[in-house]
Amino acid sequence: MTTRVFKELIEKRWDEGKFVCVGLDSDLAKIPEVAKTDSVVATLNGFNRAIISATCDLVCAYKPNIAFYEAYGEEGISALRTLVLSVRNIAPQVPVIGDMKRGDIGNTNAGYVKAAFDYFGFDAITVPPYMGKESLKPFLDMADKGIIVLCRTSNPGAGEFQDLMVCVTTDMGKYIPLYQYVAHRVAREWNENNNCCLVVGATYPGELETVRGIIGDDMPILIPGIGAQGGEVEATVKAGKNSKGQGMIINSARGIIFASKEKDFAEVARQKTIELHEMINQYR
Amino acid sequence: MTTRVFKELIEKRWDEGKFVCVGLDSDLAKIPEVAKTDSVVATLNGFNRAIISATCDLVCAYKPNIAFYEAYGEEGISALRTLVLSVRNIAPQVPVIGDMKRGDIGNTNAGYVKAAFDYFGFDAITVPPYMGKESLKPFLDMADKGIIVLCRTSNPGAGEFQDLMVCVTTDMGKYIPLYQYVAHRVAREWNENNNCCLVVGATYPGELETVRGIIGDDMPILIPGIGAQGGEVEATVKAGKNSKGQGMIINSARGIIFASKEKDFAEVARQKTIELHEMINQYR
Repeated sequence: MTTRVFKELIEKRWDEGKFVCVGLDSDLAKIPEVAKTDSVVATLNGFNRAIISATCDLVCAYKPNIAFYEAYGEEGISALRTLVLSVRNIAPQVPVIGDMKRGDIGNTNAGYVKAAFDYFGFDAITVPPYMGKESLKPFLDMADKGIIVLCRTSNPGAGEFQDLMVCVTTDMGKYIPLYQYVAHRVAREWNENNNCCLVVGATYPGELETVRGIIGDDMPILIPGIGAQGGEVEATVKAGKNSKGQGMIINSARGIIFASKEKDFAEVARQKTIELHEMINQYR
Repeated sequence: MTTRVFKELIEKRWDEGKFVCVGLDSDLAKIPEVAKTDSVVATLNGFNRAIISATCDLVCAYKPNIAFYEAYGEEGISALRTLVLSVRNIAPQVPVIGDMKRGDIGNTNAGYVKAAFDYFGFDAITVPPYMGKESLKPFLDMADKGIIVLCRTSNPGAGEFQDLMVCVTTDMGKYIPLYQYVAHRVAREWNENNNCCLVVGATYPGELETVRGIIGDDMPILIPGIGAQGGEVEATVKAGKNSKGQGMIINSARGIIFASKEKDFAEVARQKTIELHEMINQYR
């Protein structure tokens, strides 16, 4: 078995022109009735398998958000593990990003590392920056895994701290917004293993363009917020792409997986994935 | 059944002179051999029950860090739920803080709210501030639950972002460190339901004193980092107490629960809890 390296997996997908990441945020309350069984685990597993089978030739990654699974306790956790196994069986070339936003002090993060990479088997995870590089070392040391740091999040109130002007000296000047300083730190100081990525929401294309300028061509940006959250594809792609027209992991969840409430839900998910895939390729 | 309100529960414990929070970070690799069985779940449940029974008359709260449980997947998750039930059975007057550090965009946080308060049954949880108040509204709206926001964390590299000087205007001046601005925002803007608390590490007593000055008497501070992480009790209590000599939830984990590797582990945990309890009361 060859080693799975997140960045290599994602770059191969980009070379095939694939930039859509399907957000497997499989909220049980929104799963079509036709896909439901008596069992939480069986419902989640069946729904996810159907979406994965219908979309896996079109995507660069899958990204389940663990909140939707943790809500169901040990049953949800078990279903999330099965999701990763399903992707490995159906489309082993596609990496799975665990959107966990986990982060604690160093020795505690060892538990999260075990959860993310041994138990669930993710290829990459998301982490918040607030506790600093030192605390995240157990993640950053996992050279084959993608460590995706929150930079400018997609939510309406993201600016409360992220837009604060901080007094630092960088090649961008003396006062820059906190989110830009996070991008600087991650690109210049945290990326020793070439495994870091950033999260920048599609809802803020101006900030996305600035971050791409700070980090240069090589670092992938995970871009949530397309579709249900209001981000526009054209502005996102023009702001987020690198000089090769690549570098983006563009996530859509509800707009794809819950596009139909009927028995055609998987076909419609495929159709919505194709639409997003084609729009991205039109603008990049 | 009367409603359990985190802040009322903790204030009752303070009135009894109890400020120790036992960190039930029950790392399976460190649990004494004598407490181990063939089953992960049974080992964690038995160990936690023994520690709870030996310490519950001395503490203001318990605080398991979910990382140590999530590492074992659905088995660990199930054991963490049982931990909360054990505290409810043995000592229902003692609140349980879920050290989860969960936070995402608004609609996603609904899943974490369900996990934290419906599935696990925690009385309070920890959350990171980076995504802002708007994102955390699903937590802040839970008026009976404690919402404990990371402010100045106990790890050595905490200052990378938390100590950055930010350009704002507050009653403290125009340029203040980010962690102080977090304290301002939480105390002045986030605490509409009187359910917010802050995390400030015992490893930074100067910062702890400053935060107490910013937030005033009423807001509890969860103080990790005593013992194994190097925080000193006298400096911590003098810096963290409010004008009533209260306001502190002082967490110790490894220094209590893993103080003995032998069959007397629960008795020794009780002894270490008494020592910390008495030191706190000597200095407050």
